[in-house]
Amino acid sequence: MVDRTSREIDRRHVFYPWAAQARIEPVVVTGGAGARFTDDTGASYLDFASQLVHANLGLQHPRLVAAIHRQADRLCTVSPNHATDVKAEAARLIATHAPGELDTVFFTTGGAEAVENAIRLARLHSGRHKILAAYRSYHGATAGAVTATGEPRRWASEPGIPGVVHFFGPYLYRSAFHATTEAEERDRALEHLEQVICFEGPDQVAAILLEPVVGTNGVLVPPDGYLAGVRELCDRYGILLVADEVMVGFGRVGEWFAVDAWNVVPDLLTFAKGVNSGYVPLGGVVLSPAIAASFADHAYPGGLTYSGHPLACAVAAESVRVFEDDDIPARARRLGETVVAPALAKIAAAHPSVGEVRGRGLFWAIELVADRDSRRMLVPYNASGPAAEPMSRVLAACKRRGVWPFTHFNRLQLAPPLIIDEADLAEGLAAVDEALAVADEYVTG
Amino acid sequence: MVDRTSREIDRRHVFYPWAAQARIEPVVVTGGAGARFTDDTGASYLDFASQLVHANLGLQHPRLVAAIHRQADRLCTVSPNHATDVKAEAARLIATHAPGELDTVFFTTGGAEAVENAIRLARLHSGRHKILAAYRSYHGATAGAVTATGEPRRWASEPGIPGVVHFFGPYLYRSAFHATTEAEERDRALEHLEQVICFEGPDQVAAILLEPVVGTNGVLVPPDGYLAGVRELCDRYGILLVADEVMVGFGRVGEWFAVDAWNVVPDLLTFAKGVNSGYVPLGGVVLSPAIAASFADHAYPGGLTYSGHPLACAVAAESVRVFEDDDIPARARRLGETVVAPALAKIAAAHPSVGEVRGRGLFWAIELVADRDSRRMLVPYNASGPAAEPMSRVLAACKRRGVWPFTHFNRLQLAPPLIIDEADLAEGLAAVDEALAVADEYVTG
Ligand SMILES: Cc1ncc(COP(=O)(O)O)c(C=O)c1O
Ligand SMILES: Cc1ncc(COP(=O)(O)O)c(C=O)c1O
Repeated sequence: MVDRTSREIDRRHVFYPWAAQARIEPVVVTGGAGARFTDDTGASYLDFASQLVHANLGLQHPRLVAAIHRQADRLCTVSPNHATDVKAEAARLIATHAPGELDTVFFTTGGAEAVENAIRLARLHSGRHKILAAYRSYHGATAGAVTATGEPRRWASEPGIPGVVHFFGPYLYRSAFHATTEAEERDRALEHLEQVICFEGPDQVAAILLEPVVGTNGVLVPPDGYLAGVRELCDRYGILLVADEVMVGFGRVGEWFAVDAWNVVPDLLTFAKGVNSGYVPLGGVVLSPAIAASFADHAYPGGLTYSGHPLACAVAAESVRVFEDDDIPARARRLGETVVAPALAKIAAAHPSVGEVRGRGLFWAIELVADRDSRRMLVPYNASGPAAEPMSRVLAACKRRGVWPFTHFNRLQLAPPLIIDEADLAEGLAAVDEALAVADEYVTG
Repeated sequence: MVDRTSREIDRRHVFYPWAAQARIEPVVVTGGAGARFTDDTGASYLDFASQLVHANLGLQHPRLVAAIHRQADRLCTVSPNHATDVKAEAARLIATHAPGELDTVFFTTGGAEAVENAIRLARLHSGRHKILAAYRSYHGATAGAVTATGEPRRWASEPGIPGVVHFFGPYLYRSAFHATTEAEERDRALEHLEQVICFEGPDQVAAILLEPVVGTNGVLVPPDGYLAGVRELCDRYGILLVADEVMVGFGRVGEWFAVDAWNVVPDLLTFAKGVNSGYVPLGGVVLSPAIAASFADHAYPGGLTYSGHPLACAVAAESVRVFEDDDIPARARRLGETVVAPALAKIAAAHPSVGEVRGRGLFWAIELVADRDSRRMLVPYNASGPAAEPMSRVLAACKRRGVWPFTHFNRLQLAPPLIIDEADLAEGLAAVDEALAVADEYVTG
């Protein structure tokens, strides 16, 4: 065995998510720190994806690593039915920063389980069954979460759970409503949502589940007023609002939670990823007092072995303290405004393949098109194999320049760790600028 | 804040699984080692539940803690799309001990997600839709896993995913088949299963999903030949066999995997809990070569952010090495045979409330009855509140004697860490013996 490399062992024994196993060649990561990681060939990358948009404090943050060491020596695991100081403290700290009155935390091990439990909580609290979820959304891959998902990753798992209905959210660049301004897009998206509510039966709808800023499916920042409008519809019809903040919570868009950018308070808020930068798997749901009260005397019918895991909670508590001490959300907002936005504006001006750039904080999308006028995507929706080649080439060009971005369909998405320093950020943006020459080759319009 | 105790903070901010939040008083665990843990009142307990039947190597095992320290200093997290040496090594070691040719591992963060992915793999590989699962089973609480679950924890989450059908497994003490011997129970259970297959449509059934030894729902050890018979039915009808070894895998019943006790090889095997004693959340599915091959050129449509988590995999790899070095499964088997079985035989003889004792390795159930002749359960099926009082009193009596067992319905279930020493094991069994005097008070028959 000693002669076999990790790469060989990996290809023989490890099964990868969302992949054709014989067609992938995973990079063997050997280490990393902050916004950089290295592989077994000696290559080093600037991490413009925060791994899978989860390592918000970067790799090997000294305070998070120290928190693991401390808690590992105290207590690594307990039954989820037992309390621990670190679980209590993590819940308290998360509740401190959660929007509005949200005050109670149910811990899971990741995002999908958080969404599963949010759906169950919403249904049982409301006594209603239907869940409205958005197209162009990703909520996880367990049966409930994947049914709520509004993109192709749902298809192979259908038929899913009953009672989930999809609606269109605002996305001015590719408006489902033929709108031409942000205000028009907002108004029409709200009108559409209200129509869906009415046609589904207002008193049948338990919850509207949405990503306040859509993550994987395009960094879709809603027009001002949209989320407030959704909140208003929810209030009017007695529907619960579930904000899935798994990707955008904990500073990604320059706020503790994305809903904070518009001062909207959901009834349930799901989180994972950025809560502890994934150093130990953790996710959860924050509950409104009213929802928590529904389960004061009636048992909540859900659970999992690793709810409130001590090691995971210890890192989460320390991560929140780092966020507080270093004002991480404000840092992300400032870097977004002062460094990323101007750089991307220049990139958009320079490259005919760039249809739109958009984002907030340290979460940005560069939407690549073959034709700016028709807005034809650089690769077709859900393309794979040869049809996706232009994007693979852009990605390869970034990697050759030492930058590892996140790509989805026809978009390059930039999500560096929130602790990245300005020089690295500028260096990465310059590399992306160069790499986009490859995309420009495909521009026909 | 400094004045508030963890207990107060916990009750205000932490939401508990499967619980009426106002009616629980969680113990605040402050530490532990091996088979003992302590709480904030200074009480110490002998852990006869391995926390939630997951800490198979006990609390704070020095080698597992050391593995966390080592890996924490190297690399805590990466994208699930990247390879690492520890992920490769954990997969290789698990594959080494997995039954038959099972050789490829898809990592999740826990048991429910493992089952979700096993269901998806089985459906996509077979091109069939139906899943047969057993009554008296627990498979997790996400929408797919909970639909497969064959006990009351499913009810509040219904309607679940389509295509799941439940059958009865063997359980001689409460035979669904009016059998009077193990052989009869086996034969009739297999006949019943074949009838269900035939009435559901043999070529519609993707998989039979079962716990090889039923865990939470009663430590139901199948009669010799039952699992081989199920395997034969699967082969006859082209159905996949999924063994859910989340609770019984990794030594719990005195074998690496429970199926090993009968030399049966499933097509998919789910694990979690004992894989790394829950020091860092981890679960997974081991795939047969044929199923893995289905996704060589076609993308597998499932995933999660923390698949193959480095810290979790580092502990899993070290845990497998501990299992190898200390021959943990054999140790569990021997202690079961030489210490637990004789002690429980005496307990059964001494207490009129004991209807049956059964188990294997370090996993045993004491089935409590109000009447040995009619086998009327000490508390009704799925009892809660006052109706469950006899069991709460038995549990309290155990705790007063410093032993923390696992209870479910009318059963006391004993699942100590596999590293427990003989003196502790004997001490705990003696305490259980004493505590059962409380159950005897309710015996009417
Ligand atoms: C918005 C959102 N929700 C849920 C999930 C699922 O989280 P996990 O992969 O931890 O199950 C993701 C993952 O990317 C996500 O972005
Ligand atoms: C057999 C079995 N499968 C699945 C699960 C679910 O595992 P988890 O709680 O990690 O989701 C359990 C949990 O007890 C189990 O015993």
